[in-house]
Amino acid sequence: MLTKPSHLFDEATRVTAGDSRWQGHTSPDYWAFVGPFGGATAATVLRAMMEHPARAGDPLAVTVNYCAPIAEGPFDLDVRLVKANRSTQHWSVEISQNGGEVATLATAVFAERRPSWSHQPAKMPDARPFEEIRRYPEVAAAWVKQYDFRFIEGRPDFRSNTKSEPQSTFSKLWIADRVPRKIDHLSLMSMSDAFFARIFHARRELVPIGTVSLSTYFHVDADDLAREDVSRVLAQADAKVFHKSFGDQAGELWSPSGRLLASTTQIVYFKA
Amino acid sequence: MLTKPSHLFDEATRVTAGDSRWQGHTSPDYWAFVGPFGGATAATVLRAMMEHPARAGDPLAVTVNYCAPIAEGPFDLDVRLVKANRSTQHWSVEISQNGGEVATLATAVFAERRPSWSHQPAKMPDARPFEEIRRYPEVAAAWVKQYDFRFIEGRPDFRSNTKSEPQSTFSKLWIADRVPRKIDHLSLMSMSDAFFARIFHARRELVPIGTVSLSTYFHVDADDLAREDVSRVLAQADAKVFHKSFGDQAGELWSPSGRLLASTTQIVYFKA
Repeated sequence: MLTKPSHLFDEATRVTAGDSRWQGHTSPDYWAFVGPFGGATAATVLRAMMEHPARAGDPLAVTVNYCAPIAEGPFDLDVRLVKANRSTQHWSVEISQNGGEVATLATAVFAERRPSWSHQPAKMPDARPFEEIRRYPEVAAAWVKQYDFRFIEGRPDFRSNTKSEPQSTFSKLWIADRVPRKIDHLSLMSMSDAFFARIFHARRELVPIGTVSLSTYFHVDADDLAREDVSRVLAQADAKVFHKSFGDQAGELWSPSGRLLASTTQIVYFKA
Repeated sequence: MLTKPSHLFDEATRVTAGDSRWQGHTSPDYWAFVGPFGGATAATVLRAMMEHPARAGDPLAVTVNYCAPIAEGPFDLDVRLVKANRSTQHWSVEISQNGGEVATLATAVFAERRPSWSHQPAKMPDARPFEEIRRYPEVAAAWVKQYDFRFIEGRPDFRSNTKSEPQSTFSKLWIADRVPRKIDHLSLMSMSDAFFARIFHARRELVPIGTVSLSTYFHVDADDLAREDVSRVLAQADAKVFHKSFGDQAGELWSPSGRLLASTTQIVYFKA
């Protein structure tokens, strides 16, 4: 009997259940420089909550604080439902390894979203079609190979640094899984960390960086996403400030139909 | 002997120390409709970490999840240093009452920020001077009386709802403490929740709302703030989307000198 092989992303973010203690394992496919790609870690954390038997509703807000790199290998997730109300749940998740110190500290709000007044003041950015844009070349980091990046603006060019004025920190691009996979909350979570560091754009060079804290808000529930039925998002990101070793980033993930699926912010350590 | 009377804000956000268990008390001066003003709660949480003997560095990123209203009276803060690195600390704080369920769940990153490359792509918004603008009238909620709001754009007018098209969700205003108080991380934390709900602006009417999750990034450390030496900020906020009972908000707090002090996002429940 033929079974559908699971997507690398689902392999990479797989968790196995305990009561409050869950297990995961880092993936070489979503490896970054000194640890797993932060988006994969965030999606793993989110998956543990979504697959928890006590889960009700869909993810609304997730914050992931990256305390230390996760070492290659297995890790534990301590998953805790902190408070449940009639239609919202508050969760916390801690990732640790070898019974040791916490590597990742996350919180999330889940909600059973009810019909209401709807209004989207934000307008979808203009974009050339995905099919008309060349794929961004592969780069060294494994996780980058898992995505299909197609830049409309701010295509990375990190080798043209002339040590002159800072360059634009804005990027607009299509993001899809390299092997197409239907967009769900897990992939949105991961893609919200899939922008190249803003400082790379500002300085046109690679410098050591690490996301310290990431917050993503979901503006659609599972029913909305099922109806969108898409395998890529139009993404844009920009930075406001770099100062004393930290810079920020704010981003948006749009469905091709013009719906804002998620918005995200992060604060990033840099050495420059 | 004359002692300087403490500011109402400092009274409202006072905490007393235990080991990991701290105590606070709600303040009638910063009361909202069904509980304390979320900004005061966030500042109280932040104060507990800042006054903790193990604290090193300045706040960099704070996320506060509002799980349930805090009832009038005393509350406990469970303050935990989750992970400390060479120059960053990761904290979590839970507020509960009467040994009962968690009302507030927060995480924070503190950092000893080192000199680095600095660059501020964001430009300070234009603004008429504070002194030239009339103060926004007092409204019913106690906490609003503690602030001096001076609107440049998006002055609230919640009684002109004609049930027609949604109106602008953008606001630009000066915010100061009513009794002047030097801006510090605590007041920035509180002011990051001091925007009126975006849905009030969109619909030009008051509807039941509640902040569910708030994240604020600080782009200055205590030295930077001491040098700014200001008692008001230029603030702006906007929303991207309202859908299925939740809407978002993104905001910025600027020093009068043109420096971005903090940026903030939140997700808000609404009934409409």
